[in-house]
Amino acid sequence: MSAYSAPLDDIGFVLEHVVDLPALCRLPAFDHLDLETVAGVLEENARFVEQVIAPLNRIGDIQHSRWSDGQVATPDGFREAYRRYVAAGWGGVPFPDAYGGGGFPWVVGIAMQEILTAANLSFSMCPLLTQGAIDALLSHGSDEQRERYLPRMVTGAWTGTMELTEPQAGSDVGALTTRAVPAEDGSWRITGQKIFITYGEHDLADNIVHLVLARVPDAPPGTKGISCFIVPKLLVGDDGSLGERNQVHCVSIEHKMGINASPTCVLAYEGAVGYLVGEPNAGMRYMFTMMNHARLSVGLQGLGLGERAYQAAVAYAHERRQGRVVGAPAGHQSPIVDHPDVRRMLSTMRATNQALRCLAYLNAECIDLAVHHPDPTVRRRHSELADLLTPITKGWGTDMGVETTSLAIQVFGGMGYIEETGVAQHYRDARIAPIYEGTNGIQAIDLVSRKLPMRAGGVVADLLAGIEATVVETTKAGEALAPIGERLTDGHRVLREATHWLLAKASDAPHTALAGATPYLRMCGFVIAAWLLGRSALSARRILDDGATGTGAESLEQKIVTARFFCDQLLPQAAGLLPAVTAGPADLTAAAF
Amino acid sequence: MSAYSAPLDDIGFVLEHVVDLPALCRLPAFDHLDLETVAGVLEENARFVEQVIAPLNRIGDIQHSRWSDGQVATPDGFREAYRRYVAAGWGGVPFPDAYGGGGFPWVVGIAMQEILTAANLSFSMCPLLTQGAIDALLSHGSDEQRERYLPRMVTGAWTGTMELTEPQAGSDVGALTTRAVPAEDGSWRITGQKIFITYGEHDLADNIVHLVLARVPDAPPGTKGISCFIVPKLLVGDDGSLGERNQVHCVSIEHKMGINASPTCVLAYEGAVGYLVGEPNAGMRYMFTMMNHARLSVGLQGLGLGERAYQAAVAYAHERRQGRVVGAPAGHQSPIVDHPDVRRMLSTMRATNQALRCLAYLNAECIDLAVHHPDPTVRRRHSELADLLTPITKGWGTDMGVETTSLAIQVFGGMGYIEETGVAQHYRDARIAPIYEGTNGIQAIDLVSRKLPMRAGGVVADLLAGIEATVVETTKAGEALAPIGERLTDGHRVLREATHWLLAKASDAPHTALAGATPYLRMCGFVIAAWLLGRSALSARRILDDGATGTGAESLEQKIVTARFFCDQLLPQAAGLLPAVTAGPADLTAAAF
Repeated sequence: MSAYSAPLDDIGFVLEHVVDLPALCRLPAFDHLDLETVAGVLEENARFVEQVIAPLNRIGDIQHSRWSDGQVATPDGFREAYRRYVAAGWGGVPFPDAYGGGGFPWVVGIAMQEILTAANLSFSMCPLLTQGAIDALLSHGSDEQRERYLPRMVTGAWTGTMELTEPQAGSDVGALTTRAVPAEDGSWRITGQKIFITYGEHDLADNIVHLVLARVPDAPPGTKGISCFIVPKLLVGDDGSLGERNQVHCVSIEHKMGINASPTCVLAYEGAVGYLVGEPNAGMRYMFTMMNHARLSVGLQGLGLGERAYQAAVAYAHERRQGRVVGAPAGHQSPIVDHPDVRRMLSTMRATNQALRCLAYLNAECIDLAVHHPDPTVRRRHSELADLLTPITKGWGTDMGVETTSLAIQVFGGMGYIEETGVAQHYRDARIAPIYEGTNGIQAIDLVSRKLPMRAGGVVADLLAGIEATVVETTKAGEALAPIGERLTDGHRVLREATHWLLAKASDAPHTALAGATPYLRMCGFVIAAWLLGRSALSARRILDDGATGTGAESLEQKIVTARFFCDQLLPQAAGLLPAVTAGPADLTAAAF
Repeated sequence: MSAYSAPLDDIGFVLEHVVDLPALCRLPAFDHLDLETVAGVLEENARFVEQVIAPLNRIGDIQHSRWSDGQVATPDGFREAYRRYVAAGWGGVPFPDAYGGGGFPWVVGIAMQEILTAANLSFSMCPLLTQGAIDALLSHGSDEQRERYLPRMVTGAWTGTMELTEPQAGSDVGALTTRAVPAEDGSWRITGQKIFITYGEHDLADNIVHLVLARVPDAPPGTKGISCFIVPKLLVGDDGSLGERNQVHCVSIEHKMGINASPTCVLAYEGAVGYLVGEPNAGMRYMFTMMNHARLSVGLQGLGLGERAYQAAVAYAHERRQGRVVGAPAGHQSPIVDHPDVRRMLSTMRATNQALRCLAYLNAECIDLAVHHPDPTVRRRHSELADLLTPITKGWGTDMGVETTSLAIQVFGGMGYIEETGVAQHYRDARIAPIYEGTNGIQAIDLVSRKLPMRAGGVVADLLAGIEATVVETTKAGEALAPIGERLTDGHRVLREATHWLLAKASDAPHTALAGATPYLRMCGFVIAAWLLGRSALSARRILDDGATGTGAESLEQKIVTARFFCDQLLPQAAGLLPAVTAGPADLTAAAF
């Protein structure tokens, strides 16, 4: 099994030349930072993760987290690695220094998350869920709640969970029935069962801060009657000391196809002490804030696993010799990396990963600008764009993660199907991501029915204008980039046509719009990916024209090759999706199952 | 976990109306048969497989086959089920009655294979490999060899293997190094190591007849120097009695992502007694005969698993309630089968499965006609068409199997990722099929470099003419079928363009043709699928026009809906592949990994 090496060069390229980290570092919120500082932190983070976390990926898959009598034991090595993760303070980097965080932009946190995810998806889920809970408390907790919980959650000494799902309430969150009744001391008593709770119980930290959705008495039905509660595993005294065990217990954990080291818990609440976050019946709104971040992070999982699988596939393709390529001497066994079909698989993986990195980082940069830019118009525009991109990052990113990890198996051939080589694990792990944090079907519905209509279609129109600008630029950028401009012209036209069609239907004929939602999301993914790779190629061209030399120049030339390959060979499938987007529901409705 | 129910109605429809089983039954070889007899056999077979074999699928996945000290124990229940399979004579149905077979057409054997595969892929591999070995001996064994081995292989009392792969010789079969040296008694002594040998050792049968590729002294290098040997696990006396243990031993079995009950063996040969099949150095040609059948059967695995996963997804979609569809009363939780996006997933699975059934059965019918038709021209034409279709059935069929089983997981949502529901197993099982029996990359190379050039492009031209005929027919077949004709017109045009481009390159610029091989194979799959679904729809229309009523009529109407859905919404992606087919190798070559 090959080691994981964080792709710091490409991460640095995207941070500097696709998103604009230097500009972020000029904002008042981040003016203590510069590119070099960020690069240094990422380098140190990468070294830690490569050496401490990545090597535990396979043992985690083999051992699984194990449940016994309400306790969950993580695999060998996880406790010590987590202790060191907390000691190094990695979890707090993108959070406010008021609570002990590093005050870095979210996009830098996302870069670190990519690395952690690639190294060990199961491990990464614990800090990821904790970040989600921190987010929710930062935005909606009272001062007292933030003081009490955040400092230790930001370090990771305590972890967090997000608890929506119940047996009858998965995608349909509004159907949840966990009850909260007020106690005399102003706290609440929570009773019900939650399922699919990631790191709902484990042995990594001293305490777990559960954020639980439940219904207060006389709450309206559906999503309008959901409230959010803090339910600590161990009650926390006013002095911050840990007190008695709360009435929340892990009844079992699931046996899954992948992410086996990440315990997926069934939690039983039996009159557990809870504390209301914000207002009653506003919990769904709070969760949506948090879910946007979480969805971006899940989209990133497609990239993380895709990148790790790509690295393994490249290493194997250089090492494994089979057959003789056209032109090789007789009797020669060529490394399979020389076969055109293997090069196609590797090219597809590389281009997809790089596109996903651009997309996820852009999405994160929008979140930073939406919060920290001094100009409210700029804030609003980027908040909108983040909202639009999030379902695409999540849906397309995770679909691609399944495809790229599958390609890695194919490069390995028979050895890919054998568990020992480790690529099968990436494929099994990757398959959860299109499901959790809102299935990709839900993402497509969100995109078509909530996001496209934002500002009467103005937000998506802005995005299309951005793509068009890149069409113009690439078309004028010389011979090497011209094919990019040509294909992107088609991609832009098709996306515009599909978008206008859906916008026209979304209000009048919602069923019609929903029928085309999934192919539309996929189309968005391919066109936006091509756009961002086109921007990468333009940046690379510019730097080359400014006189870059040596290995740096080679890697910039590869950016152009990658963008051209994607636009020429993968982007055209966007047009093949248009008929499915605009077919309407007739044949779906006519089908009898 | 839902039970598997063999789709006998659709199987019967395809046998009668897409391939022409009635015409096959009029050939001298099969004139003892008619449709009713075949239907009766299939019904009985389905009942047996549903009741005896299908229920062992999950236990097989959980227990795995287990190796200990050279022995392999199959999971609980497999021995008894196999005994009953042999007792019922199911394995022999498509083989000549001279050796105790049923004398049925291969296409009927393929229908039975679909059912067995769907029920329990791991189990099915044992009869499948045995059939391959029977095939090889039927075609190339001596009379004495056939007499000695075939009767007990046809019943399944003895099983067979096909042994090509060695650590350094996977796709590159010519690199194998296992040696065969002549012994004084006319037999040979085989020494070497084989890997990835399916059912190379097990406890289901009294003997295993290994067909082993090896090199005789002074054999030419590469595939021209490969010979084929029979190496029985237990030596067989002249009276057919089992004698001493041969020097072939199972050193270990692999730990795989799926097909866990199917033992994948490492076999060590240490001077094992072997018997040459046919001529020395002709083994590769013999294996190719057999591989064509095996590749068709592996393509069928995509269908079998896809069908089983589809049935599970439909059942779950009716049972599971989440959300409220547009138009449903307030407070109602709709079964998810009512959501457009779920209907899209189910429609995609159903259409793909039905198309694959048509394709695989057509491929098998060609094999029957190639062997049994009295007219040599008809024989040759169908032999050619079988050769052309085989890599497409294998490559597209198995790629689709991965996609449809993945869709089933998505329909199940979080429950799909939990092993208990069983759909995850189908997905894990399905992932081997694009790899073994020639990776799908190898299939694409075979298609472009060996199959397209057959008869100077005449074979593929005949296929294109067949598609065009269906274009004409569907276009004239009324409003309901017109959209099929319209889309198929585009599909036909795109496939013709890609084909002509590749034919022009195949001889002059092989590297260029190889660069586009994989997207071309995929394009072939989509266009041929649409063609065959179009033919299904035409047949359905004809029967309806002849006055079909009741549930039969409903199911015929659904054929038209399915074909229209596929042509309207899935076929258009074929056009999106054209740029990748014709891009040439430039950007693949320019990529540095």
